[in-house]
Amino acid sequence: MESLLLKNILLDDRPVDIPVSGGRIGRIRPAGTEPLPPADEAATRILDCTGKVAMPGFINMHTHAAMSLMRGMEEDVIFQDWIANIWDIEARIDADFVYWGTKVAALEMIKTGTTTFNDQYWFSPAAHKAALEMGIRPVISYVVLDKSDPAEAARQREQCQRMFEASRAWGADGSVFEMAFHAVYSVSEEMILWTADFARRNDLLLHIHLCETEKEVRDCREAHGGLSPVQYLDRLGVLDERCIAAHTLWLDEADIETLGRRRVNCVHNVNSNLKLASGWRFPYNELRDAGANVCLGTDGCASSNNLDMLEAMKTSAILQKAWRGDPKALPLNELLAAATRNGARALRLPAGEIREGALADILIINPDTTFFLSPGTFLANFIYSAHSDCIESVVAGGRLVMHNREVPGEKEILAGGREVLREIC
Amino acid sequence: MESLLLKNILLDDRPVDIPVSGGRIGRIRPAGTEPLPPADEAATRILDCTGKVAMPGFINMHTHAAMSLMRGMEEDVIFQDWIANIWDIEARIDADFVYWGTKVAALEMIKTGTTTFNDQYWFSPAAHKAALEMGIRPVISYVVLDKSDPAEAARQREQCQRMFEASRAWGADGSVFEMAFHAVYSVSEEMILWTADFARRNDLLLHIHLCETEKEVRDCREAHGGLSPVQYLDRLGVLDERCIAAHTLWLDEADIETLGRRRVNCVHNVNSNLKLASGWRFPYNELRDAGANVCLGTDGCASSNNLDMLEAMKTSAILQKAWRGDPKALPLNELLAAATRNGARALRLPAGEIREGALADILIINPDTTFFLSPGTFLANFIYSAHSDCIESVVAGGRLVMHNREVPGEKEILAGGREVLREIC
Repeated sequence: MESLLLKNILLDDRPVDIPVSGGRIGRIRPAGTEPLPPADEAATRILDCTGKVAMPGFINMHTHAAMSLMRGMEEDVIFQDWIANIWDIEARIDADFVYWGTKVAALEMIKTGTTTFNDQYWFSPAAHKAALEMGIRPVISYVVLDKSDPAEAARQREQCQRMFEASRAWGADGSVFEMAFHAVYSVSEEMILWTADFARRNDLLLHIHLCETEKEVRDCREAHGGLSPVQYLDRLGVLDERCIAAHTLWLDEADIETLGRRRVNCVHNVNSNLKLASGWRFPYNELRDAGANVCLGTDGCASSNNLDMLEAMKTSAILQKAWRGDPKALPLNELLAAATRNGARALRLPAGEIREGALADILIINPDTTFFLSPGTFLANFIYSAHSDCIESVVAGGRLVMHNREVPGEKEILAGGREVLREIC
Repeated sequence: MESLLLKNILLDDRPVDIPVSGGRIGRIRPAGTEPLPPADEAATRILDCTGKVAMPGFINMHTHAAMSLMRGMEEDVIFQDWIANIWDIEARIDADFVYWGTKVAALEMIKTGTTTFNDQYWFSPAAHKAALEMGIRPVISYVVLDKSDPAEAARQREQCQRMFEASRAWGADGSVFEMAFHAVYSVSEEMILWTADFARRNDLLLHIHLCETEKEVRDCREAHGGLSPVQYLDRLGVLDERCIAAHTLWLDEADIETLGRRRVNCVHNVNSNLKLASGWRFPYNELRDAGANVCLGTDGCASSNNLDMLEAMKTSAILQKAWRGDPKALPLNELLAAATRNGARALRLPAGEIREGALADILIINPDTTFFLSPGTFLANFIYSAHSDCIESVVAGGRLVMHNREVPGEKEILAGGREVLREIC
């Protein structure tokens, strides 16, 4: 892996030099104060970043990457029809579809500044391979979804065990293997318990959908003696700080208290919630104050319809301000944390910040556009005004995965995506 | 003015040739069926648009363009503090500030696909000059805002009369002069009447802020015997099909009925409403069904914080779906109309559509990105997935104002903006 030097880049308004080697950030120093020794200079790729700004790469805490090929297929339908249609399409896909779908997703994530993504999808070895080829850090789950079919459950237990064994060889490449079960309405209690137990015994993260729609909560209360999905899972012993719960939108006070007390990682997916008409009152302040770790995600492209974390950040913030009637809600620094540091904490990765020793996930921003002209803070202009095309270059895990908006192999990736789409459509 | 031929471009999924001359769209024909005569070919700039898609330019129906230099200055404050702070800054600006601010805004609008903008700001001759230089069509208002000061009112009446006289010379360049008063809470009844009368006598459009905040409605009811701003203005005879009312967010049933019956043009500014925490329940269905003409705008950059109509379209649509609990709300075709045709209708311009004889306002879209890969409709991918950087070239009023993302003079415009900012900050 090559060494990099980001020379004369602005970090928190100060010009610094940021050295990168072995996938990690080295000692950051004031710009120009410590020239590289000639021996290092030959082995280091030096990027002149004068006038550019450094930001940590985004961590997309909930997505289904390969659905990058499924956007626009089902528009303007209700959630339950939507998911039935999606499952129907998914019955026809294969590992090749997931491989190319994840390549396309990784291309889009890199171009929009994401350097780590928490994936929940099928044919995960194909997704893992695609992400590593692209140089973006995948958190790859084995997804349990048995729809209460015992034969299917047995098949999934066996497949999961095999995939977990294979994942032990990953280690050094930075990818993470985690467990997942889809949701309380699609997985049997037996398999919820089995999955949570498997995660606990092997100290793995557990990635689930939780309280996404009002109907999910209503149905759960009917099926489980009045218990909400949060209370039901808590009774099963599923909720703790290894749990990553996507959506957590329809919560009552007791649910919020439980998620906080159990230190659950709650992922807000604002655009998906809006577009599917699932809801809009994500209890950000309440979850934060209760002690939950609030993160951001985009969800899959079939619902959201892109993987742009900057867009997710803006919409999250302005929507919180509106429905709370409080323009101070979800301020910029907390918003950035939700898209970076909080995700790293949930994933137990030394990432999401630009500091010595952290994983080298760095966005190089070009502020020489209309969006950054005014004297407001950089962060306000970056999140509220700019688009992701201000992200000029991306370092992920120490690799320069995009340089001047160019990602190697873009044409071939788009062609590969088109090819697998022709086969299922 | 040069003639253009957009050769082999997709329009409603069919490849066509689109000729442009004299600022208008000529007869559109199936691609390749009618080659230009050699004489015309020499005088025509031919753009090979193979693989590209044609869309009508956006019409931003409510903005304050020169506030492009004021974004990020006031973040996370309540509306009444925000507007007081803005007015304080505005006391220090001059025509030079507005000229460069409008140049910057026009640059951003062109890059995000807007070809006509409805402006409400100070030093309007400077804004007019800047927009024409950039090749984007300005609708320029004289803004009455007397804060019930009779001396100020007299000065504004006199200045307005002079500006209107000067505007009679505009004609052929496509720009429009209109009247404006700021809002019921900032303009005396005498000047509301004077402005509306001036507009009526000279058949001018009338551009106002209306029912933006709950407080505006409450204060109006207190000041005017229980009348809402809509009922108050209707009693004054202000509301008709020449009226362009920005925001119309806090309306009761009677207000909606009145705005519909009077055929008022109502402009939704979703991002501004959210970010200032003004509200989120824009009554789109109700206004449409009552007979109002619903359009979209971005508002000024001090509140929204950019001029991106594609972003405004996506947020408007997904937010309507969410709070109505109806994923079918504000469907794609109506959303596009609100951003194009409806604005043209309000402004009485033959624009907002790609058809023979219309003003030649055309976006040339490059769909060769991840956002357009999947087989959903082009419109779904354009609005829900893509960003404005898919807009590769822009024809405005028959002029090629952006080609391959390059707008002439960009560096100088950014430098000019920085220079005037140094003077007021």
